[in-house]
Amino acid sequence: MAKNEFDLIAHYFERQAVDRRDVNLAIGDDCALLTVPEGCQLAVSTDSLVAGTHFLADADPALVAHKALAANLSDLAAMGATPAWVSLALTMPEPDETWLKGFCQGFFALAEYYNVQLIGGDTTKGPLSITLTVQGFVPQGQALTRSGASNGDWVYVTGNLGDSAAGLALILGERHLSSEALTQTLTLRHYQAQPRVLAGQALRGIASAALDISDGVMSDLGHILSRSGLGAVLDVDKLPLSDELLAFEPDEIKARQMALTSGEEYELCFTVPEANRGAVETALAHTGVKACCIGQLHAGSGIALQSNGQPLDWQLHGYDHFAE
Amino acid sequence: MAKNEFDLIAHYFERQAVDRRDVNLAIGDDCALLTVPEGCQLAVSTDSLVAGTHFLADADPALVAHKALAANLSDLAAMGATPAWVSLALTMPEPDETWLKGFCQGFFALAEYYNVQLIGGDTTKGPLSITLTVQGFVPQGQALTRSGASNGDWVYVTGNLGDSAAGLALILGERHLSSEALTQTLTLRHYQAQPRVLAGQALRGIASAALDISDGVMSDLGHILSRSGLGAVLDVDKLPLSDELLAFEPDEIKARQMALTSGEEYELCFTVPEANRGAVETALAHTGVKACCIGQLHAGSGIALQSNGQPLDWQLHGYDHFAE
Repeated sequence: MAKNEFDLIAHYFERQAVDRRDVNLAIGDDCALLTVPEGCQLAVSTDSLVAGTHFLADADPALVAHKALAANLSDLAAMGATPAWVSLALTMPEPDETWLKGFCQGFFALAEYYNVQLIGGDTTKGPLSITLTVQGFVPQGQALTRSGASNGDWVYVTGNLGDSAAGLALILGERHLSSEALTQTLTLRHYQAQPRVLAGQALRGIASAALDISDGVMSDLGHILSRSGLGAVLDVDKLPLSDELLAFEPDEIKARQMALTSGEEYELCFTVPEANRGAVETALAHTGVKACCIGQLHAGSGIALQSNGQPLDWQLHGYDHFAE
Repeated sequence: MAKNEFDLIAHYFERQAVDRRDVNLAIGDDCALLTVPEGCQLAVSTDSLVAGTHFLADADPALVAHKALAANLSDLAAMGATPAWVSLALTMPEPDETWLKGFCQGFFALAEYYNVQLIGGDTTKGPLSITLTVQGFVPQGQALTRSGASNGDWVYVTGNLGDSAAGLALILGERHLSSEALTQTLTLRHYQAQPRVLAGQALRGIASAALDISDGVMSDLGHILSRSGLGAVLDVDKLPLSDELLAFEPDEIKARQMALTSGEEYELCFTVPEANRGAVETALAHTGVKACCIGQLHAGSGIALQSNGQPLDWQLHGYDHFAE
């Protein structure tokens, strides 16, 4: 019976190395039973990745697993939360042992890195998709939200921007590069983004607002602005670009436009009051993550772009995953 | 852009009446922020319902929503937990306002009944499916698990068994009844099962083990037996059957076989030590849920069936949702 085959799938997910003391009962009962540390709030986020919408059905399952979990961990990072648990709902057309092995490898590699325990889920028959719910802890009242920014705060981003969009263009075959190494690097930048978990925690008490870049910094910063009732000016010359992006797109204007709209970057975008600017670099030093200031908030609304102090009227198109 | 249309969907889910004090930040940020009551463990369960596997794509969306949430709340009930929060991942081919309105109506009606707050989720483009993660609280150490049963404990079930399978046969057109009223009643028994939330809480400290009947009592009781290292004898004459089931299937042997294998019943199956038998009825009195004893555990393994003290050799086929 098909049902039993899918029950068997569940056994793939029982082989995990993480064994947290706050997981009192894990996979195998009607519910998981968990204990939240005293003085902490629980942070919870859910993300779905659907074949054909968020990844190609023939993509390497280890990379798909990484991307799914990284996207979710990135939401915890954006709140300054420490990851703890994850639930996995996996829907697939037929039990496919090879695919499952690859998926588990990618999934557990990242989960173990962050000491995240799989606490349960569901395996069902249907079109390929993955839904994860991650949970983490944040000390009471210290979460980084989208609504805490103030007039005059500075806008920062971690890492580089634009590589994910370049990788996606290569995956979709919209662009070809003669360099295989560069193709490989940018492809992995798309699939293997590193959630900025340590950076998010380090920014508690320093950043006034934060989120992760999933739809492009222009679009995502807009969420902070609307929640905080502010506008922003971004200096496009300050956008952090990788050497690989500039090799992919030597036209620097186009490269900067890609950086503004590239989604699924999973870098953090955060705002910092003037008084805390000096603390950013120190706080991030131990995380190995760089951050750079790309603009400032003001009392208006919307996002204005400038270069060398002159306004720009760039027309930008949003990032839309695989959908058109 | 398709992405933005799906962002708009999210607004449907912001209109909810439930506003819990333990939800510190709900929909609209990177994560929800939540507070678990002191002295409680968190109980978490995830279920996916996929169109074509667990429901027909043209089914009434309010019923689909009820079924999805009820299935998940039933897992909390089986642990004796009090429901609190739910995350919803909804994947649909195109934004469909009529379907969404119906879905929200069914979803929020049940959520409000149990004071469950929607805390977040994801809306994505793809084949129709629903994944829910529900969370609830249970006083530290008091959860009902599958592994607590002992030799000699009695086996109980709540409500009646078999109606869900009868309803499913009618929905799939495998059977037709001349009575429209009976067809309607049994169809709703399939779609609108009531999770036994209050009964589960009332059984804390009385039942030694519990689970909810999702795959048929034969199959599900097997989980308690394997976790507890025991066998069971069930008296088929004691299976609780509704008048509607006997009208659907007048052959009483066939009706009792349906009761043993009918899945998605969302009744509780639980075990009770001899010393606690007297407390069951009292504990359940205020919940409006009946329970009846259908057998007893023994030191062996597997499930034996009997009638009038004589063993039966019924060959039963498992319940397999819509899959074959």
